Amino acid sequence: MNRRWLLDHYPDGPATEACWRLAESPMPQPGPGQILVKLRWLSMDPYMRGRISPAANYAAGVQPGEVMQGGGVGEVIASNHPEWKPGDLAEAMGMGWQDHAVLTPDLPGAARVNRVPEGVPEQATLSWLGMPGLTAWTGLTEIGRPLPGDTVVISAASGAVGQVAGQIAKAMGARVVAIAGSDEKLAHCRDIGYDAAVSHRSPTLAADLRAACPDGVHVFFDNTGGVIHDTVLAQLATHARVIICGRIAVVDKAAEEDIGLRASARLIVTRARVQGLVVFDWWHQREAAMAQIARLWRDGKLLYREDVLEGLERAPEAFVRMMQGRNFGKQLVRL
Amino acid sequence: MNRRWLLDHYPDGPATEACWRLAESPMPQPGPGQILVKLRWLSMDPYMRGRISPAANYAAGVQPGEVMQGGGVGEVIASNHPEWKPGDLAEAMGMGWQDHAVLTPDLPGAARVNRVPEGVPEQATLSWLGMPGLTAWTGLTEIGRPLPGDTVVISAASGAVGQVAGQIAKAMGARVVAIAGSDEKLAHCRDIGYDAAVSHRSPTLAADLRAACPDGVHVFFDNTGGVIHDTVLAQLATHARVIICGRIAVVDKAAEEDIGLRASARLIVTRARVQGLVVFDWWHQREAAMAQIARLWRDGKLLYREDVLEGLERAPEAFVRMMQGRNFGKQLVRL
Repeated sequence: MNRRWLLDHYPDGPATEACWRLAESPMPQPGPGQILVKLRWLSMDPYMRGRISPAANYAAGVQPGEVMQGGGVGEVIASNHPEWKPGDLAEAMGMGWQDHAVLTPDLPGAARVNRVPEGVPEQATLSWLGMPGLTAWTGLTEIGRPLPGDTVVISAASGAVGQVAGQIAKAMGARVVAIAGSDEKLAHCRDIGYDAAVSHRSPTLAADLRAACPDGVHVFFDNTGGVIHDTVLAQLATHARVIICGRIAVVDKAAEEDIGLRASARLIVTRARVQGLVVFDWWHQREAAMAQIARLWRDGKLLYREDVLEGLERAPEAFVRMMQGRNFGKQLVRL
Repeated sequence: MNRRWLLDHYPDGPATEACWRLAESPMPQPGPGQILVKLRWLSMDPYMRGRISPAANYAAGVQPGEVMQGGGVGEVIASNHPEWKPGDLAEAMGMGWQDHAVLTPDLPGAARVNRVPEGVPEQATLSWLGMPGLTAWTGLTEIGRPLPGDTVVISAASGAVGQVAGQIAKAMGARVVAIAGSDEKLAHCRDIGYDAAVSHRSPTLAADLRAACPDGVHVFFDNTGGVIHDTVLAQLATHARVIICGRIAVVDKAAEEDIGLRASARLIVTRARVQGLVVFDWWHQREAAMAQIARLWRDGKLLYREDVLEGLERAPEAFVRMMQGRNFGKQLVRL
């Protein structure tokens, strides 16, 4: 039998573990051109909150009764595809929260099944060498483009995307400032190379940020949205670039409830540019970007912290933990 | 004697006529390399609100007791500059609200004194052939870049910038939708070529806009900010571009009071780009852009409405009128 987490119902407000239910179904069989994979790792990412909402998004969501979507890494245990054989390690966005998945390797774009490269931890393609890492790389190289000496501020700075973004920005010659939510996370940010770290829980966040960014913020990599977003935008430097990557601080709110300081005045004064980022727009550059990120890692310039829960049965717990910011580093589930 | 409007005090909230006082001073004399100009036209522009605020802005402001800043057109009546002679018509951002101005023609950038071209109305360099027209041109050609068939929405669509932007977007092959505040203004927008026109005073603005933009908004040229801004951003199409040009709807509010719907969710879903615009960043392209705009005008593709008050004594009235949206077309004062 195959254990699978099905979406029970859409969250009404914050996602809870009760939104999913564990079910069993017969072991799936690969059809022509397909492979059967036994999952070893599941990736928990904030974008998945958008998949369990009835609101329109940039990709189709999960309907109640369907297997929860999610990326993962697993071992091929049966194959009807000439290029895949049992024992190969596969990474795919379309694994789903289940013990076994049937995949079609030849699907295009983000649906493609990728080989796990040799010489790196097998779960790296879910974190710094995968979608989160590529998001950090793309946001900085395509949108933020910090120049040497620019001040780059990163929110959720110790998270799956943030900790990679901080070290990439550092490698690009920028001064990098972390925003995170606990003393442990702030210490980790300093340990991996951030020049300064500011707590978003500080009652003097704006003043703390101003002290850390005396010349203003040239590039803002925003993973949180909300009040943190407002605070940083009010301190943009002339011709600043803002990467709108995530809104983990407010993502459980309905879009029409996300109220705060409008940025128009500051955008006119600074002529800043604010741009939404979905990494799949740059997925055709995936191989080249991975090579760049892997080089940073081999050179010892990319340290990375993971937060691992054990067992498929803990997948909803891992997701809720990440949504609430209780994880520390990239949230994974090991099966 | 020379009549001059001095800033009496910064506005506390909306600007009122009492913020200025009329004073007389001896007729100024041009020094070496300078010219003396008798003003014929004063330009009233929303950016001037930022000049009478103690808050930091992209340019230095007017101190209480100083002559109010403002662009204008006038006739040279005395010259110590080899290239200027009495009878020449000059246009400059630095005329000020006064009967006569001493100018230094050779200042760089936006402070330069320009000749009024032949073959166009002499006040055109204050409106469609001047800063407002160049703002429209730059916003669309450098930031918005509509493709043929794109839907372009313009707020304050019958204003000094808006009516030029609408016709430039139309000339670029776009479908152009006006947002304006009165039946007369909406009718004018349709008359000059907008494909649809929506009232921002409608209680069903969002639905009206959705009906006018069934494929969403590809380019938004925002002159108003505020609730109009929020409403349009909620309807952006994928990869939309937003030009943040002005915020006449909220400019009398302190920046920290400008509260509304945050755009993060929509920006991520659409991967849209929002950019602040100050036309002087592109001032080096002024001559080339003027040639393009003048060609549209000669081809009959640029219709333009002015709102003219008579007499220097009415300058504060004209400014307040424009800030309150009671003008219809470009606000000028003829001396």
